[in-house]
Amino acid sequence: MTAGPLPLARRADSLVGSVIDSSTALLASKTHDIVRFAMGSPAPEAIPTKILAHVGVEAIGEAAPDAFDYAATEGDPAMRQALLHALEGTSDATTPERLTITSGGMQGLDLAYKIFLDPGDLVAVESPTYTNGTATALSYQAELLEVPVDDDGMDIDALREAVQRAGRAPKIIYTIPTFQNPSGVTMSLPRRRDLLGLAREWGSVLIDDDPYGMLRFAGDDIPTLHELADGDPLVYSVRTFSKIVAPGLRVGWVDADPSLQRLLIAAKQAMDTCTNLPAQRLLAAFLREGYLDDHLLTQREQYRLRKEAMQAALTEHFDGLAHWTDPQGGFFLWVTFERAVDTQALFEIALDEGVAYIPGNAFSPEGRFPNALRLCFASSTPERIREGVARLRRAVDVLEGA
Amino acid sequence: MTAGPLPLARRADSLVGSVIDSSTALLASKTHDIVRFAMGSPAPEAIPTKILAHVGVEAIGEAAPDAFDYAATEGDPAMRQALLHALEGTSDATTPERLTITSGGMQGLDLAYKIFLDPGDLVAVESPTYTNGTATALSYQAELLEVPVDDDGMDIDALREAVQRAGRAPKIIYTIPTFQNPSGVTMSLPRRRDLLGLAREWGSVLIDDDPYGMLRFAGDDIPTLHELADGDPLVYSVRTFSKIVAPGLRVGWVDADPSLQRLLIAAKQAMDTCTNLPAQRLLAAFLREGYLDDHLLTQREQYRLRKEAMQAALTEHFDGLAHWTDPQGGFFLWVTFERAVDTQALFEIALDEGVAYIPGNAFSPEGRFPNALRLCFASSTPERIREGVARLRRAVDVLEGA
Repeated sequence: MTAGPLPLARRADSLVGSVIDSSTALLASKTHDIVRFAMGSPAPEAIPTKILAHVGVEAIGEAAPDAFDYAATEGDPAMRQALLHALEGTSDATTPERLTITSGGMQGLDLAYKIFLDPGDLVAVESPTYTNGTATALSYQAELLEVPVDDDGMDIDALREAVQRAGRAPKIIYTIPTFQNPSGVTMSLPRRRDLLGLAREWGSVLIDDDPYGMLRFAGDDIPTLHELADGDPLVYSVRTFSKIVAPGLRVGWVDADPSLQRLLIAAKQAMDTCTNLPAQRLLAAFLREGYLDDHLLTQREQYRLRKEAMQAALTEHFDGLAHWTDPQGGFFLWVTFERAVDTQALFEIALDEGVAYIPGNAFSPEGRFPNALRLCFASSTPERIREGVARLRRAVDVLEGA
Repeated sequence: MTAGPLPLARRADSLVGSVIDSSTALLASKTHDIVRFAMGSPAPEAIPTKILAHVGVEAIGEAAPDAFDYAATEGDPAMRQALLHALEGTSDATTPERLTITSGGMQGLDLAYKIFLDPGDLVAVESPTYTNGTATALSYQAELLEVPVDDDGMDIDALREAVQRAGRAPKIIYTIPTFQNPSGVTMSLPRRRDLLGLAREWGSVLIDDDPYGMLRFAGDDIPTLHELADGDPLVYSVRTFSKIVAPGLRVGWVDADPSLQRLLIAAKQAMDTCTNLPAQRLLAAFLREGYLDDHLLTQREQYRLRKEAMQAALTEHFDGLAHWTDPQGGFFLWVTFERAVDTQALFEIALDEGVAYIPGNAFSPEGRFPNALRLCFASSTPERIREGVARLRRAVDVLEGA
């Protein structure tokens, strides 16, 4: 990292390169006729733009003269109330003293590392893992411990062995237990219980990052780590509206032990004062007027069709050449080539062929998974998905000189 | 700091207590018939709610189907373009490669400390200073050096002496040069030049935090540190729409050396991914349609009348008992009692009398200024200001048993 004569912090080195440059990815994905398998965003048509605009006019118009003022740091009362009500009876049901509204899920992670992590502390993460979440840990100078993921989620035996080898307990265990980013797999119920047990044994904070849990389109619900924890203060849950309603609003929430709330409010004030108030008012109205349930019903069905289209296309074009995960919800599917295919080198060729994805090694701080890649099936129609997968196959052929 | 059995980071101790609890202050200030001198927010009637709602409907409605999607991390192109255009010809004029859109000015500070500060580094701050800005520094484990402020802003001789005593150069010098928070004073042009000279001599990053500069209602403009720096990479400028348009939108910007842009984007991605997109679209339309200039003209005139009303009321009720600063713009006026008046003890009595302010020691990490207080004249009408100052005087009389 060079910046002329500037005295950068030690952590600066780990920042650049540790995130996926979504500004570039975004621009690439907006170029005409690139099939968007890269970014983890909902499809344009999956964002209820018309409803949000309509609800927004009511929520932030003349009827609410304070809609553009500072919000309370812990969240606007209307937003908090609507959210608590919407979560009643779900696996994420919670109470006011556990709830802090955040500027998206990412800020929930930023807050966790801010309040728990000292430089050099160990953070156990899934391998592959959500890169920008890891980047947040690195921005607080975490040392990362990568723990393999299989079809049942994080491998708990491997976690125990890795910690034994490291010779010290992780300060934080970071997991995306449901429809994991990037693999799409879900942690089984026995593993969730085992993971909670280990966190308790070690006194580790368990970050339960679950942005996709409400987007299940197959299989049976599994209780969230939040529910299984039953108030254990070690479990810190991060949630967001980005994947289930709209990412551009930047509204999420943290569900954490009541003893942390003052600290979270103080830390958030030192980050961004408060979360955008019109966005909170808009979401509160969206929840209050009952749009969420219908919206989720539609989305689950759409995402199921898209995942099935992607799997069918993969079977058509990649049978024998690669294998892939079978997510029961969420946005992502993880493809691993049977032979050495450099998915970083493939990336530029794929863009030329008109398809964008994210190379596997971007999801591992150690650069594992050079022959894997992440596909987002949520952003494209089934027809575009079929086209995109065909293009991806052509890119592989070009790479291999076929 | 206790949080049950939770393993908190070392920095957690410095977080709680280092910020002014605005959630409480906000609630207090919203209680019926409390005159709001506490929070540094624009008056409800100073926020162009109707225009924003009107512009917002166009900017985020059906005409812009991607208005609720992720934004580019460096800022939405529409927002960036409108801002660059609006700044042309001003003391804050800048270029695309220097510009990063942030979630309010506070995130601009968070980014600065994230990329420059290592634990234990020295940060020179004004005394009194903006508490939440200091809190951000403390959240990165800064060591603070308080440098006195007089009617010409930060005392540069005192800065030089303090650094000499400390025996090491500050990594960062943090200043609010114009209509400073909390004192309302403005750094003179010679001092701005001297400060730049010292930053260059020491290789210190100079954080030029200027939220109020566009709200001058008296005296002549002084070039910003950004303009005086003429591209010196050591100057890092933080700006926000919170005070000039609306705080609830949480949109600001950082103007920094082009060599920092990639790092800033990476750091911001690890904080909140991107800034709320509808808010950016709304502000872009507000700027593009030329509302800002008229709005600022109105606001400057209103704030002038309010400051004059506050000074007149202070002269009526506090002549001989206290002295106060004479700001030429911005939101705040700083009152220092001539004799020992414990403004912390006064606070509760003042709330009972129906007036809220912030005690002086809240603006000093070392707890200086026990007999001073900050008054925000921006949030109340002249009539309410007269009433609030009268109530403040009654509170002093009650405290002193008169």
